[in-house]
Amino acid sequence: MSDAIITKPLSYVAGGADCHGYLALPAGPGPHPGVLVAPAFGGLSDSDRAVADRLAGLGYAALGVDYYSGGAYTQDREEASALMQGMQNDRPLLAARMQGALAALAGQEQVDAARLGAMGFCFGGKAVLDLARSGADFRAGVTFHGVYDAPASGSQTMKPAMLILHGWDDPLATPEQTVALAAELTAHCADWQLLGFGHTGHGFTNVNAKGPGMGYSEAATTRGWANMLQLFADKLA
Amino acid sequence: MSDAIITKPLSYVAGGADCHGYLALPAGPGPHPGVLVAPAFGGLSDSDRAVADRLAGLGYAALGVDYYSGGAYTQDREEASALMQGMQNDRPLLAARMQGALAALAGQEQVDAARLGAMGFCFGGKAVLDLARSGADFRAGVTFHGVYDAPASGSQTMKPAMLILHGWDDPLATPEQTVALAAELTAHCADWQLLGFGHTGHGFTNVNAKGPGMGYSEAATTRGWANMLQLFADKLA
Repeated sequence: MSDAIITKPLSYVAGGADCHGYLALPAGPGPHPGVLVAPAFGGLSDSDRAVADRLAGLGYAALGVDYYSGGAYTQDREEASALMQGMQNDRPLLAARMQGALAALAGQEQVDAARLGAMGFCFGGKAVLDLARSGADFRAGVTFHGVYDAPASGSQTMKPAMLILHGWDDPLATPEQTVALAAELTAHCADWQLLGFGHTGHGFTNVNAKGPGMGYSEAATTRGWANMLQLFADKLA
Repeated sequence: MSDAIITKPLSYVAGGADCHGYLALPAGPGPHPGVLVAPAFGGLSDSDRAVADRLAGLGYAALGVDYYSGGAYTQDREEASALMQGMQNDRPLLAARMQGALAALAGQEQVDAARLGAMGFCFGGKAVLDLARSGADFRAGVTFHGVYDAPASGSQTMKPAMLILHGWDDPLATPEQTVALAAELTAHCADWQLLGFGHTGHGFTNVNAKGPGMGYSEAATTRGWANMLQLFADKLA
Protein backbone atom coordinates (compact mmCIF):
# COMPACT_ATOMS: atom_id res chain seq x y z
CA MET A 1 0.00 0.00 0.00
CA SER A 2 2.98 2.31 0.40
CA ASP A 3 4.38 2.18 -3.13
CA ALA A 4 3.61 5.77 -3.89
CA ILE A 5 4.53 7.45 -0.64
CA ILE A 6 7.35 9.92 -0.15
CA THR A 7 9.47 9.72 2.99
CA LYS A 8 12.18 11.94 4.38
CA PRO A 9 13.83 13.02 7.60
CA LEU A 10 12.28 16.17 9.03
CA SER A 11 14.16 18.29 11.51
CA TYR A 12 12.23 20.83 13.55
CA VAL A 13 12.60 22.77 16.77
CA ALA A 14 10.40 21.83 19.72
CA GLY A 15 10.72 22.68 23.39
CA GLY A 16 13.88 24.62 22.65
CA ALA A 17 15.75 21.72 21.06
CA ASP A 18 16.48 20.33 17.63
CA CYS A 19 14.33 17.30 16.96
CA HIS A 20 14.85 14.79 14.19
CA GLY A 21 11.59 13.30 13.02
CA TYR A 22 10.50 11.23 10.06
CA LEU A 23 7.91 12.42 7.59
CA ALA A 24 5.90 10.08 5.38
CA LEU A 25 3.67 11.71 2.79
CA PRO A 26 0.96 10.26 0.59
CA ALA A 27 1.32 10.70 -3.14
CA GLY A 28 -0.22 13.83 -4.60
CA PRO A 29 -0.07 17.48 -3.62
CA GLY A 30 -2.62 17.27 -0.85
CA PRO A 31 -3.57 18.91 1.35
CA HIS A 32 -3.58 15.69 3.35
CA PRO A 33 -4.75 15.21 6.90
CA GLY A 34 -1.79 14.87 9.25
CA VAL A 35 -1.04 12.44 12.06
CA LEU A 36 1.74 12.43 14.64
CA VAL A 37 3.26 9.04 15.43
CA ALA A 38 4.71 9.13 18.95
CA PRO A 39 7.10 6.26 19.63
CA ALA A 40 7.52 4.05 22.67
CA PHE A 41 10.15 4.86 25.29
CA GLY A 42 13.10 3.79 23.17
CA GLY A 43 12.60 6.71 20.80
CA LEU A 44 11.79 6.81 17.11
CA SER A 45 12.37 3.34 15.67
CA ASP A 46 12.03 1.52 12.40
CA SER A 47 8.69 0.18 13.56
CA ASP A 48 7.43 3.74 14.11
CA ARG A 49 8.67 4.67 10.65
CA ALA A 50 6.79 1.67 9.30
CA VAL A 51 3.62 2.90 11.03
CA ALA A 52 4.11 6.33 9.47
CA ASP A 53 4.61 4.70 6.07
CA ARG A 54 1.44 2.68 6.52
CA LEU A 55 -0.55 5.76 7.46
CA ALA A 56 0.86 7.61 4.45
CA GLY A 57 -0.25 4.73 2.26
CA LEU A 58 -3.74 5.32 3.62
CA GLY A 59 -3.70 9.02 2.82
CA TYR A 60 -2.33 10.58 6.01
CA ALA A 61 0.78 12.72 6.19
CA ALA A 62 2.49 11.12 9.18
CA LEU A 63 5.28 12.56 11.28
CA GLY A 64 7.29 10.21 13.47
CA VAL A 65 8.04 12.29 16.56
CA ASP A 66 11.41 12.75 18.27
CA TYR A 67 10.13 13.79 21.68
CA TYR A 68 13.52 13.29 23.32
CA SER A 69 15.16 15.62 20.76
CA GLY A 70 18.52 15.00 19.17
CA GLY A 71 17.24 11.87 17.48
CA ALA A 72 17.78 9.85 20.65
CA TYR A 73 17.06 6.19 20.12
CA THR A 74 18.06 3.07 21.94
CA GLN A 75 17.16 -0.59 22.08
CA ASP A 76 18.66 -0.89 25.56
CA ARG A 77 15.89 -1.01 28.16
CA GLU A 78 17.86 0.66 30.94
CA GLU A 79 19.00 3.45 28.65
CA ALA A 80 15.43 3.88 27.40
CA SER A 81 14.13 3.99 30.97
CA ALA A 82 16.63 6.72 31.81
CA LEU A 83 15.56 8.75 28.78
CA MET A 84 11.92 8.29 29.69
CA GLN A 85 12.47 9.22 33.31
CA GLY A 86 14.01 12.48 32.21
CA MET A 87 10.84 13.38 30.33
CA GLN A 88 8.62 12.00 33.07
CA ASN A 89 10.29 14.49 35.41
CA ASP A 90 9.44 17.36 33.06
CA ARG A 91 5.96 16.83 31.73
CA PRO A 92 5.61 20.41 30.45
CA LEU A 93 8.65 19.70 28.27
CA LEU A 94 7.02 16.54 26.94
CA ALA A 95 3.94 18.57 26.03
CA ALA A 96 6.10 21.26 24.43
CA ARG A 97 7.94 18.66 22.36
CA MET A 98 4.62 17.30 21.12
CA GLN A 99 3.26 20.79 20.44
CA GLY A 100 6.37 21.56 18.41
CA ALA A 101 5.97 18.38 16.42
CA LEU A 102 2.31 19.20 15.77
CA ALA A 103 3.30 22.66 14.56
CA ALA A 104 6.00 21.19 12.31
CA LEU A 105 3.49 18.80 10.79
CA ALA A 106 0.89 21.55 10.39
CA GLY A 107 3.48 23.71 8.66
CA GLN A 108 4.13 21.27 5.83
CA GLU A 109 2.66 22.57 2.61
CA GLN A 110 1.11 19.19 1.81
CA VAL A 111 -0.70 19.11 5.18
CA ASP A 112 -4.12 20.49 6.05
CA ALA A 113 -3.50 22.14 9.43
CA ALA A 114 -7.20 21.91 10.25
CA ARG A 115 -7.20 18.11 10.06
CA LEU A 116 -4.64 16.82 12.53
CA GLY A 117 -4.49 13.72 14.68
CA ALA A 118 -1.97 11.99 16.90
CA MET A 119 -1.30 8.42 17.92
CA GLY A 120 1.33 6.88 20.10
CA PHE A 121 2.62 3.75 21.77
CA CYS A 122 3.50 3.21 25.44
CA PHE A 123 5.17 6.44 26.69
CA GLY A 124 4.17 7.87 23.31
CA GLY A 125 0.57 7.28 24.36
CA LYS A 126 1.25 9.41 27.39
CA ALA A 127 2.78 12.00 25.03
CA VAL A 128 -0.46 12.06 23.02
CA LEU A 129 -2.48 12.42 26.21
CA ASP A 130 -0.21 15.24 27.41
CA LEU A 131 -0.59 16.98 24.05
CA ALA A 132 -4.36 16.82 24.48
CA ARG A 133 -4.07 17.87 28.14
CA SER A 134 -2.09 20.93 27.03
CA GLY A 135 -5.09 22.18 25.06
CA ALA A 136 -3.45 21.67 21.67
CA ASP A 137 -5.66 21.96 18.63
CA PHE A 138 -6.07 18.59 16.99
CA ARG A 139 -9.06 16.43 16.21
CA ALA A 140 -8.29 12.84 17.17
CA GLY A 141 -5.86 11.25 19.62
CA VAL A 142 -5.20 7.53 19.97
CA THR A 143 -3.08 5.67 22.52
CA PHE A 144 -1.87 2.09 22.22
CA HIS A 145 -0.90 0.64 25.61
CA GLY A 146 -0.36 4.13 26.93
CA VAL A 147 0.42 5.16 30.48
CA TYR A 148 -2.17 7.26 32.18
CA ASP A 149 -0.86 9.26 35.16
CA ALA A 150 -1.86 12.87 34.76
CA PRO A 151 0.76 15.61 34.99
CA ALA A 152 0.84 17.79 38.10
CA SER A 153 -0.41 20.69 36.00
CA GLY A 154 -3.67 18.85 35.35
CA SER A 155 -5.51 19.22 32.10
CA GLN A 156 -6.98 21.89 29.89
CA THR A 157 -10.12 21.14 27.95
CA MET A 158 -9.08 18.45 25.50
CA LYS A 159 -10.01 19.31 21.94
CA PRO A 160 -9.57 15.95 20.20
CA ALA A 161 -11.77 12.90 20.31
CA MET A 162 -9.72 10.37 22.28
CA LEU A 163 -9.49 6.62 21.81
CA ILE A 164 -7.67 4.64 24.50
CA LEU A 165 -6.55 1.19 23.32
CA HIS A 166 -5.76 -0.75 26.42
CA GLY A 167 -4.53 -4.18 27.44
CA TRP A 168 -6.58 -5.02 30.51
CA ASP A 169 -3.69 -6.94 32.11
CA ASP A 170 -1.21 -4.11 31.56
CA PRO A 171 0.75 -3.76 34.82
CA LEU A 172 1.66 -0.18 33.88
CA ALA A 173 -2.00 0.76 33.64
CA THR A 174 -4.06 -1.13 36.19
CA PRO A 175 -7.86 -1.20 36.19
CA GLU A 176 -7.79 1.44 38.95
CA GLN A 177 -5.53 3.70 36.87
CA THR A 178 -7.71 3.08 33.84
CA VAL A 179 -10.85 4.04 35.76
CA ALA A 180 -9.00 7.17 36.94
CA LEU A 181 -8.13 8.05 33.35
CA ALA A 182 -11.78 7.60 32.40
CA ALA A 183 -12.75 10.05 35.13
CA GLU A 184 -10.14 12.53 33.90
CA LEU A 185 -11.40 12.20 30.35
CA THR A 186 -14.99 12.62 31.48
CA ALA A 187 -13.95 15.86 33.16
CA HIS A 188 -11.94 17.26 30.26
CA CYS A 189 -12.73 15.51 26.96
CA ALA A 190 -16.10 15.71 25.22
CA ASP A 191 -15.65 12.57 23.11
CA TRP A 192 -13.71 9.61 24.43
CA GLN A 193 -13.66 5.86 24.03
CA LEU A 194 -11.80 3.13 25.86
CA LEU A 195 -11.30 -0.20 24.13
CA GLY A 196 -9.97 -2.75 26.57
CA PHE A 197 -8.62 -6.11 25.45
CA GLY A 198 -8.82 -9.09 27.77
CA HIS A 199 -5.77 -11.31 28.36
CA THR A 200 -3.64 -8.55 26.89
CA GLY A 201 -0.68 -6.86 28.50
CA HIS A 202 1.60 -3.95 27.85
CA GLY A 203 3.24 -3.53 24.47
CA PHE A 204 0.62 -5.52 22.60
CA THR A 205 1.51 -3.94 19.25
CA ASN A 206 5.17 -4.86 19.63
CA VAL A 207 6.06 -8.21 18.08
CA ASN A 208 9.13 -8.32 20.32
CA ALA A 209 7.32 -7.56 23.59
CA LYS A 210 8.22 -10.12 26.23
CA GLY A 211 8.22 -10.40 30.00
CA PRO A 212 5.67 -10.30 32.83
CA GLY A 213 2.55 -8.41 31.83
CA MET A 214 3.96 -7.79 28.35
CA GLY A 215 3.33 -9.44 25.04
CA TYR A 216 2.34 -9.04 21.44
CA SER A 217 -1.30 -9.63 20.56
CA GLU A 218 -2.25 -9.82 16.93
CA ALA A 219 -5.95 -9.61 17.78
CA ALA A 220 -5.59 -6.50 19.94
CA THR A 221 -3.32 -4.86 17.39
CA THR A 222 -5.74 -5.55 14.55
CA ARG A 223 -8.80 -4.45 16.50
CA GLY A 224 -7.09 -1.35 17.85
CA TRP A 225 -5.75 -0.33 14.46
CA ALA A 226 -9.20 -0.72 12.87
CA ASN A 227 -10.81 1.45 15.53
CA MET A 228 -8.09 4.06 15.13
CA LEU A 229 -8.58 4.22 11.38
CA GLN A 230 -12.33 4.56 11.86
CA LEU A 231 -11.81 7.48 14.24
CA PHE A 232 -9.38 9.13 11.84
CA ALA A 233 -11.84 8.61 8.99
CA ASP A 234 -14.60 10.21 11.10
CA LYS A 235 -12.59 13.14 12.41
CA LEU A 236 -9.91 13.90 9.80
CA ALA A 237 -11.76 13.21 6.56
CA MET B 1 -30.65 -3.43 2.64
CA SER B 2 -33.48 -5.68 3.76
CA ASP B 3 -35.46 -5.89 0.52
CA ALA B 4 -34.75 -9.54 -0.01
CA ILE B 5 -35.09 -10.87 3.51
CA ILE B 6 -37.79 -13.27 4.69
CA THR B 7 -39.38 -12.73 8.09
CA LYS B 8 -41.80 -14.76 10.13
CA PRO B 9 -42.92 -15.49 13.67
CA LEU B 10 -41.12 -18.47 15.15
CA SER B 11 -42.54 -20.32 18.13
CA TYR B 12 -40.29 -22.62 20.07
CA VAL B 13 -40.13 -24.22 23.50
CA ALA B 14 -37.49 -22.99 25.95
CA GLY B 15 -37.21 -23.45 29.68
CA GLY B 16 -40.42 -25.42 29.66
CA ALA B 17 -42.55 -22.70 28.11
CA ASP B 18 -43.84 -21.69 24.70
CA CYS B 19 -41.87 -18.75 23.38
CA HIS B 20 -42.84 -16.55 20.47
CA GLY B 21 -39.82 -15.21 18.66
CA TYR B 22 -39.26 -13.47 15.36
CA LEU B 23 -37.07 -14.93 12.65
CA ALA B 24 -35.46 -12.84 9.90
CA LEU B 25 -33.65 -14.76 7.17
CA PRO B 26 -31.35 -13.56 4.43
CA ALA B 27 -32.28 -14.39 0.87
CA GLY B 28 -30.97 -17.67 -0.47
CA PRO B 29 -30.94 -21.19 0.87
CA GLY B 30 -27.99 -20.71 3.20
CA PRO B 31 -26.68 -22.12 5.36
CA HIS B 32 -26.38 -18.71 6.98
CA PRO B 33 -24.65 -17.86 10.24
CA GLY B 34 -27.21 -17.26 12.98
CA VAL B 35 -27.52 -14.54 15.59
CA LEU B 36 -29.85 -14.24 18.58
CA VAL B 37 -31.26 -10.78 19.24
CA ALA B 38 -32.12 -10.48 22.95
CA PRO B 39 -34.40 -7.53 23.70
CA ALA B 40 -34.35 -5.02 26.51
CA PHE B 41 -36.52 -5.54 29.59
CA GLY B 42 -39.79 -4.68 27.88
CA GLY B 43 -39.63 -7.83 25.77
CA LEU B 44 -39.43 -8.32 22.04
CA SER B 45 -40.27 -5.01 20.35
CA ASP B 46 -40.47 -3.54 16.89
CA SER B 47 -36.99 -2.11 17.35
CA ASP B 48 -35.64 -5.60 18.06
CA ARG B 49 -37.40 -6.90 14.96
CA ALA B 50 -35.79 -4.06 13.01
CA VAL B 51 -32.38 -5.12 14.33
CA ALA B 52 -33.08 -8.70 13.25
CA ASP B 53 -34.13 -7.43 9.82
CA ARG B 54 -30.96 -5.39 9.53
CA LEU B 55 -28.80 -8.38 10.46
CA ALA B 56 -30.66 -10.52 7.93
CA GLY B 57 -29.93 -7.89 5.31
CA LEU B 58 -26.26 -8.37 6.15
CA GLY B 59 -26.40 -12.13 5.74
CA TYR B 60 -27.22 -13.33 9.26
CA ALA B 61 -30.25 -15.42 10.17
CA ALA B 62 -31.48 -13.49 13.19
CA LEU B 63 -33.89 -14.70 15.86
CA GLY B 64 -35.55 -12.13 18.08
CA VAL B 65 -35.79 -13.85 21.46
CA ASP B 66 -38.81 -14.11 23.71
CA TYR B 67 -36.99 -14.78 26.97
CA TYR B 68 -40.07 -14.10 29.08
CA SER B 69 -42.08 -16.68 27.08
CA GLY B 70 -45.67 -16.21 26.00
CA GLY B 71 -44.72 -13.28 23.79
CA ALA B 72 -44.77 -10.94 26.78
CA TYR B 73 -44.16 -7.36 25.75
CA THR B 74 -44.90 -4.05 27.39
CA GLN B 75 -44.02 -0.41 27.01
CA ASP B 76 -44.93 0.28 30.63
CA ARG B 77 -41.79 0.64 32.72
CA GLU B 78 -43.29 -0.73 35.93
CA GLU B 79 -44.73 -3.72 34.15
CA ALA B 80 -41.41 -4.31 32.40
CA SER B 81 -39.56 -4.06 35.71
CA ALA B 82 -41.86 -6.66 37.21
CA LEU B 83 -41.28 -9.01 34.28
CA MET B 84 -37.54 -8.48 34.55
CA GLN B 85 -37.51 -9.03 38.29
CA GLY B 86 -39.16 -12.38 37.77
CA MET B 87 -36.32 -13.49 35.53
CA GLN B 88 -33.70 -11.83 37.72
CA ASN B 89 -34.95 -14.05 40.54
CA ASP B 90 -34.47 -17.16 38.41
CA ARG B 91 -31.24 -16.79 36.49
CA PRO B 92 -31.07 -20.48 35.55
CA LEU B 93 -34.43 -19.99 33.82
CA LEU B 94 -33.07 -17.00 31.92
CA ALA B 95 -30.14 -19.13 30.75
CA ALA B 96 -32.51 -21.96 29.81
CA ARG B 97 -34.68 -19.58 27.79
CA MET B 98 -31.62 -18.37 25.91
CA GLN B 99 -30.35 -21.92 25.39
CA GLY B 100 -33.73 -22.88 23.97
CA ALA B 101 -33.69 -19.93 21.62
CA LEU B 102 -30.18 -20.85 20.50
CA ALA B 103 -31.30 -24.40 19.82
CA ALA B 104 -34.35 -23.17 17.89
CA LEU B 105 -32.13 -20.96 15.74
CA ALA B 106 -29.61 -23.75 15.22
CA GLY B 107 -32.41 -26.07 14.15
CA GLN B 108 -33.54 -23.93 11.24
CA GLU B 109 -32.60 -25.59 7.98
CA GLN B 110 -31.22 -22.32 6.59
CA VAL B 111 -28.89 -21.90 9.59
CA ASP B 112 -25.36 -23.21 10.05
CA ALA B 113 -25.41 -24.48 13.64
CA ALA B 114 -21.63 -24.18 13.82
CA ARG B 115 -21.71 -20.42 13.25
CA LEU B 116 -23.86 -18.87 15.95
CA GLY B 117 -23.69 -15.57 17.76
CA ALA B 118 -25.84 -13.59 20.16
CA MET B 119 -26.38 -9.93 20.90
CA GLY B 120 -28.63 -8.14 23.29
CA PHE B 121 -29.66 -4.85 24.80
CA CYS B 122 -29.95 -3.92 28.49
CA PHE B 123 -31.37 -6.98 30.32
CA GLY B 124 -30.92 -8.77 26.99
CA GLY B 125 -27.19 -8.10 27.39
CA LYS B 126 -27.37 -9.91 30.70
CA ALA B 127 -29.22 -12.71 28.91
CA VAL B 128 -26.35 -13.01 26.41
CA LEU B 129 -23.84 -13.04 29.26
CA ASP B 130 -25.86 -15.70 31.08
CA LEU B 131 -26.01 -17.78 27.91
CA ALA B 132 -22.22 -17.61 27.73
CA ARG B 133 -21.91 -18.28 31.46
CA SER B 134 -24.01 -21.41 31.01
CA GLY B 135 -21.35 -22.89 28.73
CA ALA B 136 -23.51 -22.73 25.61
CA ASP B 137 -21.82 -23.34 22.31
CA PHE B 138 -21.71 -20.15 20.28
CA ARG B 139 -18.90 -18.12 18.81
CA ALA B 140 -19.54 -14.46 19.51
CA GLY B 141 -21.56 -12.60 22.12
CA VAL B 142 -22.20 -8.86 22.19
CA THR B 143 -23.89 -6.74 24.84
CA PHE B 144 -25.17 -3.19 24.35
CA HIS B 145 -25.60 -1.38 27.70
CA GLY B 146 -25.89 -4.72 29.43
CA VAL B 147 -26.09 -5.36 33.15
CA TYR B 148 -23.24 -7.29 34.62
CA ASP B 149 -24.04 -8.95 37.95
CA ALA B 150 -23.08 -12.62 37.79
CA PRO B 151 -25.61 -15.29 38.73
CA ALA B 152 -25.18 -17.12 42.02
CA SER B 153 -24.25 -20.23 40.06
CA GLY B 154 -21.15 -18.49 38.72
CA SER B 155 -19.83 -19.22 35.27
CA GLN B 156 -18.73 -22.10 33.15
CA THR B 157 -15.93 -21.59 30.66
CA MET B 158 -17.39 -19.15 28.15
CA LYS B 159 -17.02 -20.39 24.60
CA PRO B 160 -17.77 -17.22 22.60
CA ALA B 161 -15.60 -14.20 22.04
CA MET B 162 -17.34 -11.48 24.03
CA LEU B 163 -17.67 -7.80 23.22
CA ILE B 164 -19.07 -5.52 25.94
CA LEU B 165 -20.38 -2.21 24.60
CA HIS B 166 -20.69 0.04 27.57
CA GLY B 167 -21.76 3.59 28.40
CA TRP B 168 -19.25 4.73 31.00
CA ASP B 169 -21.87 6.83 32.85
CA ASP B 170 -24.39 3.97 33.00
CA PRO B 171 -25.79 3.98 36.54
CA LEU B 172 -26.82 0.33 36.14
CA ALA B 173 -23.23 -0.67 35.42
CA THR B 174 -20.81 1.47 37.40
CA PRO B 175 -17.05 1.51 36.80
CA GLU B 176 -16.67 -0.83 39.78
CA GLN B 177 -19.21 -3.27 38.33
CA THR B 178 -17.53 -2.99 34.95
CA VAL B 179 -14.13 -3.78 36.43
CA ALA B 180 -15.74 -6.75 38.21
CA LEU B 181 -17.16 -7.99 34.90
CA ALA B 182 -13.72 -7.68 33.35
CA ALA B 183 -12.30 -9.83 36.14
CA GLU B 184 -15.04 -12.40 35.60
CA LEU B 185 -14.38 -12.45 31.87
CA THR B 186 -10.65 -12.79 32.46
CA ALA B 187 -11.37 -15.83 34.63
CA HIS B 188 -13.81 -17.52 32.24
CA CYS B 189 -13.56 -16.12 28.69
CA ALA B 190 -10.53 -16.54 26.46
CA ASP B 191 -11.32 -13.62 24.14
CA TRP B 192 -13.06 -10.53 25.43
CA GLN B 193 -13.21 -6.83 24.66
CA LEU B 194 -14.78 -3.92 26.48
CA LEU B 195 -15.57 -0.79 24.50
CA GLY B 196 -16.52 2.02 26.86
CA PHE B 197 -18.06 5.25 25.61
CA GLY B 198 -17.52 8.47 27.54
CA HIS B 199 -20.44 10.74 28.39
CA THR B 200 -22.76 7.88 27.56
CA GLY B 201 -25.41 6.38 29.79
CA HIS B 202 -27.74 3.43 29.80
CA GLY B 203 -29.91 2.70 26.80
CA PHE B 204 -27.63 4.45 24.33
CA THR B 205 -29.02 2.52 21.35
CA ASN B 206 -32.60 3.50 22.21
CA VAL B 207 -33.75 6.68 20.49
CA ASN B 208 -36.43 7.04 23.16
CA ALA B 209 -34.11 6.61 26.16
CA LYS B 210 -34.59 9.44 28.64
CA GLY B 211 -34.00 10.12 32.32
CA PRO B 212 -31.02 10.30 34.69
CA GLY B 213 -28.08 8.28 33.40
CA MET B 214 -30.03 7.32 30.29
CA GLY B 215 -29.95 8.61 26.76
CA TYR B 216 -29.55 7.84 23.11
CA SER B 217 -26.08 8.30 21.60
CA GLU B 218 -25.74 8.10 17.87
CA ALA B 219 -21.93 7.96 18.13
CA ALA B 220 -21.93 5.10 20.64
CA THR B 221 -24.56 3.22 18.67
CA THR B 222 -22.63 3.59 15.42
CA ARG B 223 -19.29 2.67 16.97
CA GLY B 224 -20.74 -0.24 18.88
CA TRP B 225 -22.58 -1.62 15.88
CA ALA B 226 -19.45 -1.43 13.72
CA ASN B 227 -17.41 -3.32 16.30
CA MET B 228 -20.15 -5.94 16.62
CA LEU B 229 -20.25 -6.48 12.87
CA GLN B 230 -16.48 -6.82 12.79
CA LEU B 231 -16.58 -9.45 15.51
CA PHE B 232 -19.35 -11.33 13.71
CA ALA B 233 -17.38 -11.13 10.46
CA ASP B 234 -14.31 -12.51 12.25
CA LYS B 235 -16.05 -15.29 14.17
CA LEU B 236 -19.10 -16.27 12.12
CA ALA B 237 -17.80 -15.95 8.56
